[in-house]
Amino acid sequence: MAGYVSDAVIRRLPGYYRHLRELEAAGVTQISSQELGKRMQLTPSQIRQDINCFGGFGRQGYGYKVSELKGHIGEILGLDRLHRLIILGAGSIGSAVARYPTFSREGFETIAMFDVAPDKVGTRMGNIPIYPMEELENFLSGYKVDIAVLATPTHCAQENLDRLYAGGVRAVWNFAPTDLNHPADMIVVNVHLSDSLQILSYRIAHRDDG
Amino acid sequence: MAGYVSDAVIRRLPGYYRHLRELEAAGVTQISSQELGKRMQLTPSQIRQDINCFGGFGRQGYGYKVSELKGHIGEILGLDRLHRLIILGAGSIGSAVARYPTFSREGFETIAMFDVAPDKVGTRMGNIPIYPMEELENFLSGYKVDIAVLATPTHCAQENLDRLYAGGVRAVWNFAPTDLNHPADMIVVNVHLSDSLQILSYRIAHRDDG
Repeated sequence: MAGYVSDAVIRRLPGYYRHLRELEAAGVTQISSQELGKRMQLTPSQIRQDINCFGGFGRQGYGYKVSELKGHIGEILGLDRLHRLIILGAGSIGSAVARYPTFSREGFETIAMFDVAPDKVGTRMGNIPIYPMEELENFLSGYKVDIAVLATPTHCAQENLDRLYAGGVRAVWNFAPTDLNHPADMIVVNVHLSDSLQILSYRIAHRDDG
Repeated sequence: MAGYVSDAVIRRLPGYYRHLRELEAAGVTQISSQELGKRMQLTPSQIRQDINCFGGFGRQGYGYKVSELKGHIGEILGLDRLHRLIILGAGSIGSAVARYPTFSREGFETIAMFDVAPDKVGTRMGNIPIYPMEELENFLSGYKVDIAVLATPTHCAQENLDRLYAGGVRAVWNFAPTDLNHPADMIVVNVHLSDSLQILSYRIAHRDDG
């Protein structure tokens, strides 16, 4: 349905989805590009351009129907499908992902975690079983996994990514603070927490630049 | 030293810093824009443009001195200063931030955590004391805090941000999955984990678009 969508627009899509979900929860059924722009700190014309870009909803002067637009953006983001996740690493980052409140309602279901620590293996985090890392290949031969979360220490991240690829996983959400080598048919999205904190530090250092 | 630096360049700075640190650790002393571009998946001309933009290092045909460029980018990012952090919320995200391996060596020192859970208050996470949330104002009146990390549940995030502002904190690293209202003289950088996972979902859904 949508034509070519630029990277900048794609990066803004989750923000649209989040704001529209909040509006829907607050009982708002209709919103103008002016109001949505104010909320999202974008100009109304940017809002109209973005929304035209992925299919063209709303009519001049009437604004957008919140539920309809949210549903449409959710579809573009693939949130209408179920994604089965596994998490490599049951440390603090793995736990944070496993317990993150909104993932399951957006269709991301964590079916297993893997770790090397003897005191974690064999236990559960909430309902999620924690298996030993050496069981990974065996597990992947029996289950279709849509996304693997890499939350293991940096020094073994590349090795774990290679094992995931060999086991058929083609999408990785990487929390290791390094850029990993991966084949072209594997999608890797990085969360570099350090980068985000450094951007904050930059903005503190340049607070008075104008 | 640096002139006007665009948002896109600022967003790339932590990536430069990370790659230069890895190169330095690997014993590489000099690198060309071609090699650095290949590593960072940017064109050599983009690399040269970026680096010119923040002060112009390196000479035509000689490439860049890794340590010098890393030091310079570190300064621009404000990593040559010490930042004192507090973390609101000692749950899984607060713990992940407290334990993140690279923050302390980049000058980010967590001096206190705050939580409401009786079983956490009064204990320590590593060396970091966990205080009751009602002690926040008292603590802020005695310590200068450069950055507060918001890792409390969404429903109290805005209230906590307001308390931080009243207590004199002017920079917040927000992990609550919502956009918060804040005065213009407060810097807020958001980590919306959900956004990042949705981008991954988008790329899975559009894998075959070409």
